[in-house]
Amino acid sequence: MIVELARLSIRPGSEAEFEEAVAQARGVFARARGFQTLALHRIIEQPGVYMLLLHWATLEDHTEHFRKSSLFAEWRALVGPFFASPPEVLHGAPVTLPA
Amino acid sequence: MIVELARLSIRPGSEAEFEEAVAQARGVFARARGFQTLALHRIIEQPGVYMLLLHWATLEDHTEHFRKSSLFAEWRALVGPFFASPPEVLHGAPVTLPA
Repeated sequence: MIVELARLSIRPGSEAEFEEAVAQARGVFARARGFQTLALHRIIEQPGVYMLLLHWATLEDHTEHFRKSSLFAEWRALVGPFFASPPEVLHGAPVTLPA
Repeated sequence: MIVELARLSIRPGSEAEFEEAVAQARGVFARARGFQTLALHRIIEQPGVYMLLLHWATLEDHTEHFRKSSLFAEWRALVGPFFASPPEVLHGAPVTLPA
């Protein structure tokens, strides 16, 4: 499992519409290979900024299969109009902590 | 519930010791009011960078109670020596997406 950490900066005043678009986009991710969970967080310190956390089975499920599929275009068509700047995306590999 | 998102940049070569220190620190957080879960992720695109995700019952459990307690000093004593730069900490409030 890997975590996609996407920092999304949204045009002022469009927060409610953006959240509605993310809700719709759940149906897009649900059709993606390796997609597991989606959680959207509003960043308390930065108005208009969200952190979207998605769990994928593998890195390639996101970076290869999803991004090169028509699902990616569907996702961007839903939420892209609300972006104030390009998303900043990182991937995290869970660390198994010593017992 | 709120999510603490802490970006931690670690001195090169100290990753294994740092992970061991975080494992020890679980016992510190376990004694903190409102602490719920801890997950450590290695950022795939940025060597030496980790994202620590902690769930707290409320924002104040982290920013007030924890940071002003002796537990914070215990946490920093464990992991501070490995930091290459000050941590960057944000807090996320989960968005309840429309059905």
